Amino acid sequence: MIVRIIHVQVKQEYRNEFETATQKNHEDSIREPGILRFDLVRDTDNPGHYVLYEVYTSEAATTSHKETAHYAEWKQAVEPMMSAPRESASFEAVIPSSPKGWESP
Amino acid sequence: MIVRIIHVQVKQEYRNEFETATQKNHEDSIREPGILRFDLVRDTDNPGHYVLYEVYTSEAATTSHKETAHYAEWKQAVEPMMSAPRESASFEAVIPSSPKGWESP
Repeated sequence: MIVRIIHVQVKQEYRNEFETATQKNHEDSIREPGILRFDLVRDTDNPGHYVLYEVYTSEAATTSHKETAHYAEWKQAVEPMMSAPRESASFEAVIPSSPKGWESP
Repeated sequence: MIVRIIHVQVKQEYRNEFETATQKNHEDSIREPGILRFDLVRDTDNPGHYVLYEVYTSEAATTSHKETAHYAEWKQAVEPMMSAPRESASFEAVIPSSPKGWESP
């Protein structure tokens, strides 16, 4: 499994809109067969700083995600809301050791 | 809910030992009533760089965790394995919007 950790900096005035747009993207994304989790968390000390925590079954699933209409729509909607470019890093899942442990309930 | 994202740098020769010690800590930690997830991921481009993704029901649960025997045991075991101090940041859960969505299956 592949985990993408993506840091996003959102302009203060767009925080609610960004969260709403990402909620929609989350709902569509977790329905993709290759996506297990699609979390959004907000920095306690810097509320414009968000982290997306995305769990994929494979590298191919990360590519498929970027080809969906909901990804394109989200990207277009949120890009003007950002105060800095997104920063993404790629990880391998270690623990939980079973794919089951990574599923959304 | 509170999410802690902790970056750990492990000396190359201790990677297996670190993963084994963290597996034990994971198993004990997800049994704590205030812990929903306790994931470990490994940087694809830098295998000594790990991220812990810990989801707590409250700030009090983060304090309780640090008072457990399994946390003390893990901390003592892994500290000599690290090539740099741990870096921890605290986040609020935004999406999924329900506590249920954060539970381990």
